[in-house]
Amino acid sequence: MPMIQITMLSGRTAEQKRKIAQRITDVMVEETGTVREGVAVAFYEVSKESYARGGVLISDK
Amino acid sequence: MPMIQITMLSGRTAEQKRKIAQRITDVMVEETGTVREGVAVAFYEVSKESYARGGVLISDK
Amino acid sequence: MPMIQITMLSGRTAEQKRKIAQRITDVMVEETGTVREGVAVAFYEVSKESYARGGVLISDK
Amino acid sequence: MPMIQITMLSGRTAEQKRKIAQRITDVMVEETGTVREGVAVAFYEVSKESYARGGVLISDK
Amino acid sequence: MPMIQITMLSGRTAEQKRKIAQRITDVMVEETGTVREGVAVAFYEVSKESYARGGVLISDK
Amino acid sequence: MPMIQITMLSGRTAEQKRKIAQRITDVMVEETGTVREGVAVAFYEVSKESYARGGVLISDK
Repeated sequence: MPMIQITMLSGRTAEQKRKIAQRITDVMVEETGTVREGVAVAFYEVSKESYARGGVLISDK
Repeated sequence: MPMIQITMLSGRTAEQKRKIAQRITDVMVEETGTVREGVAVAFYEVSKESYARGGVLISDK
Repeated sequence: MPMIQITMLSGRTAEQKRKIAQRITDVMVEETGTVREGVAVAFYEVSKESYARGGVLISDK
Repeated sequence: MPMIQITMLSGRTAEQKRKIAQRITDVMVEETGTVREGVAVAFYEVSKESYARGGVLISDK
Repeated sequence: MPMIQITMLSGRTAEQKRKIAQRITDVMVEETGTVREGVAVAFYEVSKESYARGGVLISDK
Repeated sequence: MPMIQITMLSGRTAEQKRKIAQRITDVMVEETGTVREGVAVAFYEVSKESYARGGVLISDK
């Protein structure tokens, strides 16, 4: 049932996303007992000009 | 007033998004009595490598 | 597959949410051909002090 | 047009949210020229057990 | 840097959320090399009347 | 600690996003006393075919 939404910088490979989705789904199933098929994971990839920490764009750091 | 956010695979046409936005807005107005102009709908389109169900990327299914 | 997230003022009944979820799922299936079981709808209910339009809280309007 | 969503710890007063909504709307209007009435701001308030940084719940810090 | 947002049914204990946050942060650090302190995890807990799959509220299943 | 997510039409310059991120972070720090480094801002940019108000796509207005 859970929806997991991950906002991160673009540039990760499909292989990295494959592993992340698989492992986070494992965590949700193991810790909450939810049905595996019900876990959805979506990646929202943003550029370094579209993400800031401490008020500063990542592209400016 | 409601914000509706739709995360789906990319590849839908403008015509499909036009119909979805119109019809979902109809639903919100009819079921809640909210003012039509206040309903916002945003589509977040992700690739098959950025969406997983049951721990498996859609691109791998 | 789609995730639909609805942010709205709290105070809607379960019956209203039941109808909204059912009808929005109908829309997604009819317009995109997605599998019905794959459509997830989540409601995020916020108070009138937690929602603003035009820079003014709904509780102040 | 913009939707601004703020996830923060619960416990802020209505007055704080009033000021934040007003000032963030000012920023969006001044920097992008968007119409004031189109700016929506929603606050999602979570408890200290529902927010983590660096893998540690805020309630444990 | 990544923001992880988890929408799930309410009722999980602080201990479950502690484990989930810790383990998901581990995954992000191990798979992407991001700095641990930069990983944020937020839980959005919704009732069974506020979550639907296949057009049916969880409370009706 | 706060996560600020901004969904807006694509087409803003890096300079506009730089100013928005800086000023919104200022607002959060000044109004809530949160630590500056803990404020994250992400921009989700959508096309005019992916955003609707009042049931009408922006591209159709």
